[in-house]
Amino acid sequence: MTQRQAALAGKVTRAMQQAARAEGLKPEIIRAGVGQGTLVVPANKLHRHLKPIAIGRGVKVKVNANIGTSPHDISLEKELAKQAAALEAGADTIMDLSTGGPLDLIRTNLLGDCPAPFGTVPIYQVMTEARSLEAVKADAFLDIVRHQGEQGVDFVTVHCGVTRAALPLLKKRVTGVVSRGGAFTIAWMRRHRKENPLFEYYDRLLDIAREFDLTLSLGDGLRPGCLADATDRAQRHELKILGELTHRAWAAGVQVMVEGPGHLPLTHIRRNMLLQQKYCRNAPFYVLGPLVTDVASGYDHIAGAIGGALAAVHGASFLCYVTPAEHLKLPEVEDVVDGVIASKIAAHAADIALGFPGAADWDLKMSQARRALDWETQIKLSVNPRKARRFRELSQATADQCTMCGRFCAMKVFDEKFE
Amino acid sequence: MTQRQAALAGKVTRAMQQAARAEGLKPEIIRAGVGQGTLVVPANKLHRHLKPIAIGRGVKVKVNANIGTSPHDISLEKELAKQAAALEAGADTIMDLSTGGPLDLIRTNLLGDCPAPFGTVPIYQVMTEARSLEAVKADAFLDIVRHQGEQGVDFVTVHCGVTRAALPLLKKRVTGVVSRGGAFTIAWMRRHRKENPLFEYYDRLLDIAREFDLTLSLGDGLRPGCLADATDRAQRHELKILGELTHRAWAAGVQVMVEGPGHLPLTHIRRNMLLQQKYCRNAPFYVLGPLVTDVASGYDHIAGAIGGALAAVHGASFLCYVTPAEHLKLPEVEDVVDGVIASKIAAHAADIALGFPGAADWDLKMSQARRALDWETQIKLSVNPRKARRFRELSQATADQCTMCGRFCAMKVFDEKFE
Repeated sequence: MTQRQAALAGKVTRAMQQAARAEGLKPEIIRAGVGQGTLVVPANKLHRHLKPIAIGRGVKVKVNANIGTSPHDISLEKELAKQAAALEAGADTIMDLSTGGPLDLIRTNLLGDCPAPFGTVPIYQVMTEARSLEAVKADAFLDIVRHQGEQGVDFVTVHCGVTRAALPLLKKRVTGVVSRGGAFTIAWMRRHRKENPLFEYYDRLLDIAREFDLTLSLGDGLRPGCLADATDRAQRHELKILGELTHRAWAAGVQVMVEGPGHLPLTHIRRNMLLQQKYCRNAPFYVLGPLVTDVASGYDHIAGAIGGALAAVHGASFLCYVTPAEHLKLPEVEDVVDGVIASKIAAHAADIALGFPGAADWDLKMSQARRALDWETQIKLSVNPRKARRFRELSQATADQCTMCGRFCAMKVFDEKFE
Repeated sequence: MTQRQAALAGKVTRAMQQAARAEGLKPEIIRAGVGQGTLVVPANKLHRHLKPIAIGRGVKVKVNANIGTSPHDISLEKELAKQAAALEAGADTIMDLSTGGPLDLIRTNLLGDCPAPFGTVPIYQVMTEARSLEAVKADAFLDIVRHQGEQGVDFVTVHCGVTRAALPLLKKRVTGVVSRGGAFTIAWMRRHRKENPLFEYYDRLLDIAREFDLTLSLGDGLRPGCLADATDRAQRHELKILGELTHRAWAAGVQVMVEGPGHLPLTHIRRNMLLQQKYCRNAPFYVLGPLVTDVASGYDHIAGAIGGALAAVHGASFLCYVTPAEHLKLPEVEDVVDGVIASKIAAHAADIALGFPGAADWDLKMSQARRALDWETQIKLSVNPRKARRFRELSQATADQCTMCGRFCAMKVFDEKFE
């Protein structure tokens, strides 16, 4: 029985109880959300030591960190370090996007060390291991999902909405297709003159997903890769298909979320969130960024935090982090930390804005500590205590002052204590 | 004649022409805006080598970088380096907030080296040089403005809206008063049992401002210092007064902008911008952040970029940067750069969202370069080419690839060129 089948049967599972506890909510709320499809609890039965969480409506906004090797940078040790750093920084989930080295070895090692829900993009393994486009059979698209499901992966990005019908819509685009899975699927469809197997044999995919309770994350293979392509016909065409596939997954007892852009001007964000909610009936929306400008290379975590905060306020439930290395290089450990923290700030700002119970308590405690000039508590309550402590130590002022204001600290001056 | 007096007399000044050229607008648009009060062109007649710019409605959103010594960190060399770095990173204006060392020497050196509009908070000099609160005379609040006007300062933060009437409204606050100028003014008012001289003798302040064409930046001495205090009675009380003082400045031929928060939940931002526009009849709104959470110590530039982008979309014209050092220490050069870039991203995202002519061209060129795998152009078009180049050099891939995706670059796969 999947979490969804259990929810529909009125049954509260152990995973739902654990997810509810993590939110400070009653388990029944989680069950109801999973039944309605507005929540997912990604939990492969084979992922040992998993601490399940809920993603979607009425729970805290979650943050995903992408890690993984590339053909140019292959080190299991480094990926394990990135995973540990991402989790320490507060990532709620991990996705292994490895495309270099022994993928199964890397994945099983990361998964074995990850108490958080663990996701993948199975097609990357097909792409990485393919001798040629011709050699890839349609079945490979499905077999690889089963293979990774057997390894214990909790959620998979599947680009089921990339179809032949969308190809003519891509011609006018500035950046074409910027999703690797989407691009590979299109290259395969063109070369084989066939439909996307994940679309054509979607029912078989649902059978596999149900077997392992794999949560499907319906990928936006046609997401805009620049502001000029934002919310274009290709993107909307795919989103409509993802809405239909969402309903079919629900009917099959499979948990599902929907992925979103990408690059969007600030003024498109609300509209995109509303479109998704309309087409996909409030299935959890998992957004990559969105980046509010194309020119922030080296600082895309900031462009993504701006877009992510606004997206979450308007309905997105799950923010895929973007690191400062985006568009330039594979992220290192420090980029991973910066990416997670930026997304956590966006997610937390949205939790406060949405009035999530208790969200603003963290800020209140911080501000009380600030007023009391209690530095130790301020450091502990910082979004990254490690960095706050380092900065504080660089600050050569006295016990109750910092080098910014010294004796002219407004808190002290206000109390007439600066003289 | 001040810029405002000239504008009202139908005269286009040289400064207006220069500001118009920088925006790609007709000088008449700048003149009209300055006349209506929706634009300011801060330009002290004594600031040599100034390149004037316009701040306000219908021009690009501007970014200010605060620099300056503190009692614990005094180095003219370092401040000159910060100023140079801020300008190189794209800061539109500089504010010297020094509170340590020989303030006049530091200020005149920085100003002499600054082609951008240069601002100060004159009361800091009174505070820094005061032997005691008692020793500070009411006249000192005004004399110091004249003194800095004579040095060539283009705009000054003056906390004229902090009045005795507001004091009872501060009692329930979590963080009290977090503006150093506001806190000093209140401490002085309490000790002397007098009204704020900048409020009581506002007409004298206007005379001084008119003499040098000093642009007044009406400070929000009572801005909220945490989310819990956001948009409270004290803040709104002060904003109403600032609206009245705005009208009086306009009547006196003095250019004026209004400062805003501070710390605001995302959901308060639009409301705050609308309140300011209502009370202050669309005078340029200069916001500090706003920070959308209190817990981002070490990353407040990101919390500020989220708030700043949204504030600018809803009417703010001028973003005061926040650095990663905020709440922890005096910023170093690298913190200044990070702060400026974060605010530039926010400002640019807002320019695009507001449809400022040509704003999105930058992004389009970047995306075309990205599609063409033209790395050199991508680096040049990045918000900080220096960092983009460093990251690119760390990327050990081939000429047309990066270490993120290597041969699996979506651009290449889409073109079926990955094999």
